[in-house]
Amino acid sequence: MKRLTIILCAVVAAISAHGADLLQLSSPEGRLQLTFTLTGAGEPVYWLFYQSKPVVLSSRLGLQLAGSAHTVIDESGTIVTTERGADMTNLHSGFVLADTATAAFDETWETVWGENRFIRNCYNELAVTLRQPAQARSLVIRFRLYDDGLGLRYEFPLSDNLAHFVIDEELTEFAMAGDHTAWWIPGDYDTQEYNYTCSRLSQMADLFPQSYDYNESQTLIGPNAVQTSLQMKTDGGLYINLHEAALVNYACMHLVFDPATYTFRSHLTPDAQGRKGYLQAPCVSPWRTIMVSDDARDILASNLILNLNEPCKIKDTGWIHPVKYMGVWWEMITGKSDWTYTDELPAVDLDSVDYSTLQPHGRHGANNANVRRYIDFAAANGFDELLVEGWNIGWEDWFCKSKDYVFDFVTPYPDFDLQGLNDYAHKKGIRLLMHHETSGSTRNYERHLEQAYTLMNRYGYDAVKSGYVGPILPRGEHHYGQWTINHYLYCITEAAKHHIMVNAHEAVRPTGLCRTYPNMLGNESARGAEFESYAALNVNHTTILPFTRLQGGPMDYTPGIFVTDMSANNPENHSQAQTTLARQLGLYVTMYSPLQMAADMPEHYERYADAFQFIKDVPVDWERSVYLEAEPGAYITAARQDRHSDNWFVGSTNGALPRKSVIRLSFLEPKHRYTATIYRDAPDADYRTNPQAYIIETREVTSRTTLTIPVAAGGGYAVSIVAQ
Amino acid sequence: MKRLTIILCAVVAAISAHGADLLQLSSPEGRLQLTFTLTGAGEPVYWLFYQSKPVVLSSRLGLQLAGSAHTVIDESGTIVTTERGADMTNLHSGFVLADTATAAFDETWETVWGENRFIRNCYNELAVTLRQPAQARSLVIRFRLYDDGLGLRYEFPLSDNLAHFVIDEELTEFAMAGDHTAWWIPGDYDTQEYNYTCSRLSQMADLFPQSYDYNESQTLIGPNAVQTSLQMKTDGGLYINLHEAALVNYACMHLVFDPATYTFRSHLTPDAQGRKGYLQAPCVSPWRTIMVSDDARDILASNLILNLNEPCKIKDTGWIHPVKYMGVWWEMITGKSDWTYTDELPAVDLDSVDYSTLQPHGRHGANNANVRRYIDFAAANGFDELLVEGWNIGWEDWFCKSKDYVFDFVTPYPDFDLQGLNDYAHKKGIRLLMHHETSGSTRNYERHLEQAYTLMNRYGYDAVKSGYVGPILPRGEHHYGQWTINHYLYCITEAAKHHIMVNAHEAVRPTGLCRTYPNMLGNESARGAEFESYAALNVNHTTILPFTRLQGGPMDYTPGIFVTDMSANNPENHSQAQTTLARQLGLYVTMYSPLQMAADMPEHYERYADAFQFIKDVPVDWERSVYLEAEPGAYITAARQDRHSDNWFVGSTNGALPRKSVIRLSFLEPKHRYTATIYRDAPDADYRTNPQAYIIETREVTSRTTLTIPVAAGGGYAVSIVAQ
Repeated sequence: MKRLTIILCAVVAAISAHGADLLQLSSPEGRLQLTFTLTGAGEPVYWLFYQSKPVVLSSRLGLQLAGSAHTVIDESGTIVTTERGADMTNLHSGFVLADTATAAFDETWETVWGENRFIRNCYNELAVTLRQPAQARSLVIRFRLYDDGLGLRYEFPLSDNLAHFVIDEELTEFAMAGDHTAWWIPGDYDTQEYNYTCSRLSQMADLFPQSYDYNESQTLIGPNAVQTSLQMKTDGGLYINLHEAALVNYACMHLVFDPATYTFRSHLTPDAQGRKGYLQAPCVSPWRTIMVSDDARDILASNLILNLNEPCKIKDTGWIHPVKYMGVWWEMITGKSDWTYTDELPAVDLDSVDYSTLQPHGRHGANNANVRRYIDFAAANGFDELLVEGWNIGWEDWFCKSKDYVFDFVTPYPDFDLQGLNDYAHKKGIRLLMHHETSGSTRNYERHLEQAYTLMNRYGYDAVKSGYVGPILPRGEHHYGQWTINHYLYCITEAAKHHIMVNAHEAVRPTGLCRTYPNMLGNESARGAEFESYAALNVNHTTILPFTRLQGGPMDYTPGIFVTDMSANNPENHSQAQTTLARQLGLYVTMYSPLQMAADMPEHYERYADAFQFIKDVPVDWERSVYLEAEPGAYITAARQDRHSDNWFVGSTNGALPRKSVIRLSFLEPKHRYTATIYRDAPDADYRTNPQAYIIETREVTSRTTLTIPVAAGGGYAVSIVAQ
Repeated sequence: MKRLTIILCAVVAAISAHGADLLQLSSPEGRLQLTFTLTGAGEPVYWLFYQSKPVVLSSRLGLQLAGSAHTVIDESGTIVTTERGADMTNLHSGFVLADTATAAFDETWETVWGENRFIRNCYNELAVTLRQPAQARSLVIRFRLYDDGLGLRYEFPLSDNLAHFVIDEELTEFAMAGDHTAWWIPGDYDTQEYNYTCSRLSQMADLFPQSYDYNESQTLIGPNAVQTSLQMKTDGGLYINLHEAALVNYACMHLVFDPATYTFRSHLTPDAQGRKGYLQAPCVSPWRTIMVSDDARDILASNLILNLNEPCKIKDTGWIHPVKYMGVWWEMITGKSDWTYTDELPAVDLDSVDYSTLQPHGRHGANNANVRRYIDFAAANGFDELLVEGWNIGWEDWFCKSKDYVFDFVTPYPDFDLQGLNDYAHKKGIRLLMHHETSGSTRNYERHLEQAYTLMNRYGYDAVKSGYVGPILPRGEHHYGQWTINHYLYCITEAAKHHIMVNAHEAVRPTGLCRTYPNMLGNESARGAEFESYAALNVNHTTILPFTRLQGGPMDYTPGIFVTDMSANNPENHSQAQTTLARQLGLYVTMYSPLQMAADMPEHYERYADAFQFIKDVPVDWERSVYLEAEPGAYITAARQDRHSDNWFVGSTNGALPRKSVIRLSFLEPKHRYTATIYRDAPDADYRTNPQAYIIETREVTSRTTLTIPVAAGGGYAVSIVAQ
């Protein structure tokens, strides 16, 4: 690792325009250019160019405050003013440039786990200190310009007039230069679990009603509001991605599009009273990120989000490790078994319930015999851990009841032998993976957190899948609001004290925080494979997720669905997964995660044992990654080198159109020989009609080999390339 | 203790009226009569009579639900209906009488601490089970009729159509029979710290604007909304008191008066979304209480509220004890010293602040030398504990900033030697009393609770004064809402695990829960003596509080203000306390509490050492209590026998008019001789002009003695009666 910080002179040129300075910054290799100035009204504005092509046109920056925290609660509703009569809620105009500071930074850091062992963090930086003379306070806007994108954030220095403050709205703009194509999901304060809609920006409002199918967990913002990361493509072939990095103690940002100006403006998630955040200076906003390239593969390969996060804060990371796991889970998702134990309880009082006196309904999945069956299979096939959901009491009335004391996270159902099953798993060389569904009842979870983690330590669990299904308690708070975001990080840091890794589902979409807290092993925050069980995933979903959801961090997508006809699990479930079997293998490579599940059931893997071999072989931690093909909505092909060997693994996922994938294996070590095992769609494979048709073939390859692999509609492939 | 439960036949008479049964219940000695029936529309209604005089005229009962918890979050806004089309939000009409059950109950239970060692709990009970055929569910209304009042509550049996439900509003009515005189404070979701207004019911709306002086902690409901306990008096001389008992996991009730019908209706405290409560059957509402007597002293002597609470749930209560204490506090309240340490911090980051590098402002009260001075004095004068406020870091920006991480409850300021001061106190035979101001940041407090209590255990603290000043976090929740009420009780039960007693200020007004959790040693929840330091207490305030605020449990009123001119403490404070010194002594008897402070400063007690003797002598736990004189707003005189001796103590507090108090000492043991020391106002005493004029005289008394004691305007007296 090397670290280099120098003061730049050349990268910033000051040009005078309408009386104000135009500050300019170039990225290290000059691919991106940033321009910043103040308008005549003292409003900060910026432009971003990619090789002289406009990416962001003149866009304003700043915040509207809600008055001091103190004043907000004043029932008289008076707007606070200084002695000089200035509007203290204005943090977006009336600025003068007080100072500029520039720097260049270049370091390479090592990941605890990741797509790459080493990541280069190389940028030029411009920090402008803006002074509001009337309000007697300052605001700093910091730009970090990379060759693959821009990060910008607000920094709030402490002063008497900026100490504790309330955000009414952040006013960051992203003015687009045209009517780009976008892959978007509707803005929502509580969930990202949507299919992506592909449209022109100007069509988004019209398509809004079709962009969602209602469920209990939604709080939609309305037409023209979309979530990040938002992937776009210009007619000129430029890929632009808007997101955020390092979302800490701040509300999650949505984007609201103004069709008149093609401008996105930030829209923060409100709290129960409609306020957007309570901050205390000195503090910073998250980074607002704009990734840009004329090659879609660069967007996938970008480390901008991770680089904008703080270095690891956990000193000893030796206990953190990637996890390949199975789960007593898919059988519940598909309706074969259930999380609950009995049908006799319309409401559960955890303090008094005695399950041993109740009639079990016989469909409880987390029973000793069944869990042992999974342990046997997972251990025999080299998995690290086994998730068991529905092990703890309370599932009979957990969902959407706004029930405060909904789980205690420590008491097993009578047919789940906590000690015995953990002992059994450990003897077989695997661990059980804990499950904490919170039902959104955040206070209840925090009250039980210490004893829940302590119980995990006692029985040898080292990872937990947590869940936040349904509306957040306290009511009125949202999954993406500052209050709840504060909660998620609290759980992460408390877990780290117990050497516990966390995989939080239904939490806020990640923003690269796993760099700082690498025990944050995964998140959901998007439609994952579970939606295959309801036939509710678009066929091209996995060709979009790496551009969008995965920018912020790994997703517990749970691939590996081999039996795509759900009636095989549950005669009443007539859904058909929108995928071929071969693609399910490819996802282990294209959907990067240090936490990979083989989501289907043991009996289904036994039925396709030859294909299952790839899941057994594929690593979950990587030395280096290369994106070979990429087009959002169409296809993605990635190659990754095992972190612990010279072996490479290639995966590909495809949208609705059959295609030929042509990949050069130039990433392989020159002159080495490798054995490639290719798991691909059979010629007659099709996700609708023949998803299980696959071919496995073996051949020798070198760095000079070019593979041409046909891919079915809804298909994909996987290749393991083992050094000879 | 004896316990007797029999099935009554005679006490309930069923009379047929407009086709529905009129059910009647009499109190054990027949003083009160209850009538219950269903209207033609199937609405439950009740009447209450006191010796044939109407107390409550025909008043409806029931609840309006907000739909199931599930449905409330449905954005479509559809009202839930059953298959039969019934409105599931209606839990107030369409009832038929399904069952009635009656019982008589008579037991005497022993208090852990209290006004009396033994309390008799004797009532007749009627439970009506009401069935809504259309909604296929039931509601039980339970009445407990005492000779001094009525308790009624709702009970929600679990059924498929009543499992998890949301309260839109409780519809309990209290129809008054006339335009009574009332001593009221305005309805507010967050504070009870008001002066009482005395008016006719019909005048309340007009007087609303004058009923409060604005402060940051208020959320007023509006004209005609008042808080409980509400004390009234009829023109016929009947004293009626409305309150509630056993407020657990439910929103606090206010009363809204309808001037057209002289009817109060319940108004529950909303959550951030305006909903009144999330309940899960089986469960019960708090008791709605109506105390009634033609003798005001009976209202003060009533144990109705305690009796309606559950018996003690703490098995070993040996560690719970009354506390007489002093505090490093009054000097801060009056502005002589301060909670803060430095003027250099407009905002404190507890994670990074280093006070040792900051300039102290020199006014920090909780410094080692000052605390030792108080310890010396308190120990020398027989006190049990010493409260020290401002000992922990964070006070520089704690107030009304909506600051989440506002205190850590474990880190002392650099000039407060946590170990050394506790050691010093323990060597002198007293304990320090912990202080946890939460600034309303409930989540932060819960996150630190375990370590805060653990620290108390480590250093030997066994009691904590907690505080909830300013708006509650999460924002939108209220001090009196279900969410926060749940928090207060959580703290009480967690504290009990650590053998810690709790005195929570700014928490919800108590409702007798100290019977169930006797480690809940005190509360504030009203204007206490601290308001004397701002000259903001009505002169007759302490003649009202025992009728109202004290019905629910003891108040940490903090009497003992000897120096009434605040400029003695702080030259800039020109306030004058509205009391004579002699009255301050009387309050130790009239304001019952197991937690009594001597609030003034050592140097002031030294100046009036002869009067201070009474504070040293007066016990804080009682064998038996007798109310000798009482009229709300005018005067209260009480006599109490020490729980650990044959000595009696009498106290009296007076309103604005000078008077003569004539009391017969018939409560004394016949034939015994006692030495009475009388601390009374001097003839020229007056709270405005001559508050420190007092006389101390000693005489021998017996049970046949009658004392005639002149009492000044704003005055009072105290008598210690020591067995010879």
